[in-house]
Amino acid sequence: MESFKILEIKESVFADNDRQAAILRQELQEKGIFLLNLMSSPGAGKTTTLLRTIEALGAEFPIAIMEADIDSEVDARAISNTGVKTIQLHTGGMCHLDADMTRQGLLGLDAPAGSLVVLENVGNLVCPAEFDTGAVKNAMILSVPEGHDKPLKYPLMFSVCHAVLINKIDVLPYFDFDMEACKAYIHKRNPEAEIIPICAKTGEGIDIWADWLRQQVHAWQAPRNNKF
Amino acid sequence: MESFKILEIKESVFADNDRQAAILRQELQEKGIFLLNLMSSPGAGKTTTLLRTIEALGAEFPIAIMEADIDSEVDARAISNTGVKTIQLHTGGMCHLDADMTRQGLLGLDAPAGSLVVLENVGNLVCPAEFDTGAVKNAMILSVPEGHDKPLKYPLMFSVCHAVLINKIDVLPYFDFDMEACKAYIHKRNPEAEIIPICAKTGEGIDIWADWLRQQVHAWQAPRNNKF
Repeated sequence: MESFKILEIKESVFADNDRQAAILRQELQEKGIFLLNLMSSPGAGKTTTLLRTIEALGAEFPIAIMEADIDSEVDARAISNTGVKTIQLHTGGMCHLDADMTRQGLLGLDAPAGSLVVLENVGNLVCPAEFDTGAVKNAMILSVPEGHDKPLKYPLMFSVCHAVLINKIDVLPYFDFDMEACKAYIHKRNPEAEIIPICAKTGEGIDIWADWLRQQVHAWQAPRNNKF
Repeated sequence: MESFKILEIKESVFADNDRQAAILRQELQEKGIFLLNLMSSPGAGKTTTLLRTIEALGAEFPIAIMEADIDSEVDARAISNTGVKTIQLHTGGMCHLDADMTRQGLLGLDAPAGSLVVLENVGNLVCPAEFDTGAVKNAMILSVPEGHDKPLKYPLMFSVCHAVLINKIDVLPYFDFDMEACKAYIHKRNPEAEIIPICAKTGEGIDIWADWLRQQVHAWQAPRNNKF
């Protein structure tokens, strides 16, 4: 009975969050801001991938980053060293960001029109998948050491992501990771998912990721740009 | 205001759970059952470590395993192949186990007196740390590919664990993982934590882990055994 009570509370939280997320997305459209929600397990390589993304696309769009962490500023410091706008969101123990927290972060960030904003969500394959942040697209990073069976175990995360980066492919020889099986498991959850193997450390595959992301940003900003 | 409301709900859930956990722990003491709550990120090596633990201690105690997964039976199948009692708990999207869910699992498992029972919690460094499952001890696995900075980012998880296994030390040469810094960060969060580097794949360090676990089980079961 206890757990049933919790689920009711969660459902009303979800419905309210979905409304907030839809409003936020509309505001982003009006401002011509593209928001990407980037998720992964702890240590899968979100920050290193962001550093590579800034290198690849920083000359094309104003980029700004929101770093969500329970505690510490490790990642925000690494990102702000690149010179892009950064804000650190301390979630105070929360395991995910919702649309309202994302809105607060965006207010604090104050990114200019035309920006590509990335929310680096809390490292967690479960809860962040349940809350629409208001982002235009969701992406997640699965790293090779985590194993190719993760789409079987964390189905919702793989279902909600438009792109799945498979990171740390440089260490493939040292792990029992079956790339083809992994791709098949991901597509079972989400037939439309774009799967991009990368190595954020060496930069391998980042051009393909940057191409995908550039295309998404242009598609989102097109209605606004066409007005001018 | 929204997030404040959520926090109030969480607090009452926590208080209720703490009571349930204390009762469950007392029942376990009376039955002479030692329950270990094993936590980690997705893919850190919980199941492989359990297989090694069964090898090391299976002749000394009856061992039984509760596998918590959002979906799939991948891990339960691997464990049940060893012949130990296994139960699969489907959490239906829940990101953690609480004391009530653990009690349900124990009822279904029906482990004999004197058992070592391990709960393999949902792969998640955030939420499972917030809920006392009623376990006698908490342990977690941090794997080398996740990076040595994780104790800074997931402070609560490292604070609540009596033992921290640092797994996948066979791949240390391929990652920028600073073992001494990692140990210092863990002890900053939790000065009493037992830190044990292991490689579940090769078996390295498993003897030290088994020694620690054996000692905990004996200490817990001593009051009961002394009665006879």
